[in-house]
Amino acid sequence: MVRSREWQLLSRPQGWPKPADFSLEEVEVGPPADGEVLVRNVYMSVDPYMRGRMNDGPSYAPPYQLGKPMYGGAVGVVESSTTDTLPEGACVRTNTAWQEYAVVPASRCEVVDPAGVGMAAYLGVLGMPGMTAYVGLFDIGQPKPGETVFVSAASGAVGSLVGQLARQHGCRVVGSAGNAEKVEWLTGELGFDAAFDYHGGGVLDKLRDAAPDGVDVYFDNVGGEQLGAAIECMNPFGRIAACGMISQYNERTGGPANLPLVVGKRIRLQGFIVSDHADRAPAFLEHVGGLLRSGAVRYRETVVDGIEGAVQALLDVLEGGHHLGKMVVRLSPEEA
Amino acid sequence: MVRSREWQLLSRPQGWPKPADFSLEEVEVGPPADGEVLVRNVYMSVDPYMRGRMNDGPSYAPPYQLGKPMYGGAVGVVESSTTDTLPEGACVRTNTAWQEYAVVPASRCEVVDPAGVGMAAYLGVLGMPGMTAYVGLFDIGQPKPGETVFVSAASGAVGSLVGQLARQHGCRVVGSAGNAEKVEWLTGELGFDAAFDYHGGGVLDKLRDAAPDGVDVYFDNVGGEQLGAAIECMNPFGRIAACGMISQYNERTGGPANLPLVVGKRIRLQGFIVSDHADRAPAFLEHVGGLLRSGAVRYRETVVDGIEGAVQALLDVLEGGHHLGKMVVRLSPEEA
Repeated sequence: MVRSREWQLLSRPQGWPKPADFSLEEVEVGPPADGEVLVRNVYMSVDPYMRGRMNDGPSYAPPYQLGKPMYGGAVGVVESSTTDTLPEGACVRTNTAWQEYAVVPASRCEVVDPAGVGMAAYLGVLGMPGMTAYVGLFDIGQPKPGETVFVSAASGAVGSLVGQLARQHGCRVVGSAGNAEKVEWLTGELGFDAAFDYHGGGVLDKLRDAAPDGVDVYFDNVGGEQLGAAIECMNPFGRIAACGMISQYNERTGGPANLPLVVGKRIRLQGFIVSDHADRAPAFLEHVGGLLRSGAVRYRETVVDGIEGAVQALLDVLEGGHHLGKMVVRLSPEEA
Repeated sequence: MVRSREWQLLSRPQGWPKPADFSLEEVEVGPPADGEVLVRNVYMSVDPYMRGRMNDGPSYAPPYQLGKPMYGGAVGVVESSTTDTLPEGACVRTNTAWQEYAVVPASRCEVVDPAGVGMAAYLGVLGMPGMTAYVGLFDIGQPKPGETVFVSAASGAVGSLVGQLARQHGCRVVGSAGNAEKVEWLTGELGFDAAFDYHGGGVLDKLRDAAPDGVDVYFDNVGGEQLGAAIECMNPFGRIAACGMISQYNERTGGPANLPLVVGKRIRLQGFIVSDHADRAPAFLEHVGGLLRSGAVRYRETVVDGIEGAVQALLDVLEGGHHLGKMVVRLSPEEA
């Protein structure tokens, strides 16, 4: 038995989540029963999709339950095990975020190798966000070399990889982000051909300037004004990979008034969820893992220390915040 | 040389077109030069897409030119010919609507056989609207037997065929239309499983009642509120064939506020233009022609007499009006 803190959902947020919607509780965890292991989580992920799980009602995933720990991607170390197949000391990825310790069936643990990349990479560039970028860009967006790809929230965990993969594929890449530092990172370090700050209005003009030949593929993380601008700039037979519409998660504003343009431009707008594409995981790991090891893909992590900061970290992700790349929360040291 | 009346566009409408935006002119036509024929038009088509051609600016088709005759689908009879390949008396389909007589290169005339169906059918169920229904339903919507198909503007030239083809395909079919008589026609004569009048609000509730198992394919002719309701009712992996968004052609209102649902529901919304799918014409003519000759598909035409009524006929189509099925304008008698 160990003492463990965990975040529970107290009430379902209306609009923007408030700290009072959550409660940090201390509980006793373990020992593991037959076939289970006790995992000490080292990093947990905070991701935009978690906002959706705070709502009740039907969705593609069950909602968080009130008074129960929330969940999500985490990587940790097996502290005690009841099965030879998963020994103590193994590094595993589980769905037990928001908990310092968790008891998990060994069958729900995925062993990962942090050598050379670090454990947190398995929550970002080699994890769900990376796979989201890969599937959304190549399977949904289907860019051809020479085409222009626009990605919003381009400095985030998903967007920063979308842009780099599209560049490697021979596309011209335009990204939008939330401040000058992020914009500079996109063009200065990640090799984006153009980038702009979406704040302060004029998104359509900024996109027109950044994509003078129009947009062929839009990887949409935000919806709203940027989706409307992308539709306006889109070339015939353009594709929109609808990954998320974070600008509308907390406030339901009207959709783009220019949606009728999808007819004449023969635009295909397609929503997708990465978990439907699990069969693509081997191709993803080979493709992106290879680029990562060769240094052809760069990524950043922003690390918040301590489980007590997890709610604020998620709010920062939802608001855009000042972080670059993948946001994770460190719950305990990598080396025990 | 013959005297011929033709409708010219005088000014580009802002919002709803007004009669004063058009002018009926009398001109001299002919004689045909080498390789040309003089066609006496018998029927001309009025279609929603014509509203788009009144706007300037880039589109998938060149806009109508001010002070020039408008154009569109027409069927007529060759009155004089300079080529053996197309003799006088031949029945042809051309793109010379809005003109009583036209001189056309023989190579731009398509010979049609009105036996048993009438000439006007080649502007409707066997013409562009019919092909639009066929391509949009089967190639873009891709319904599977047992699925629910919802079509808006279901009593129109396109929608009434969409619903019947979907029924023949083994789908459950729901349609919306603009008055009680149209709704009665859909369920009473065309075999729709359910239909409702979209006027008077509550579209979402009406659709929920009519499609209790949700919507798998939405054939969108209108956009706006009905598109929003379809997204709300859509089952996972639903498809939207975006054929037109007539409710927003004259007034740009905001798009559906629930557009973010396309992500979680993995909806595919795809615009299409029938002219991109010309390779499907033989399959279409075989499929729909066969159903038509066997009586398995029903259709109606609403005929307005005289070219002077053409503008009002188009306005009626754009407004929804009281007509059933395909609206055409008769410019001269079928039998000369």
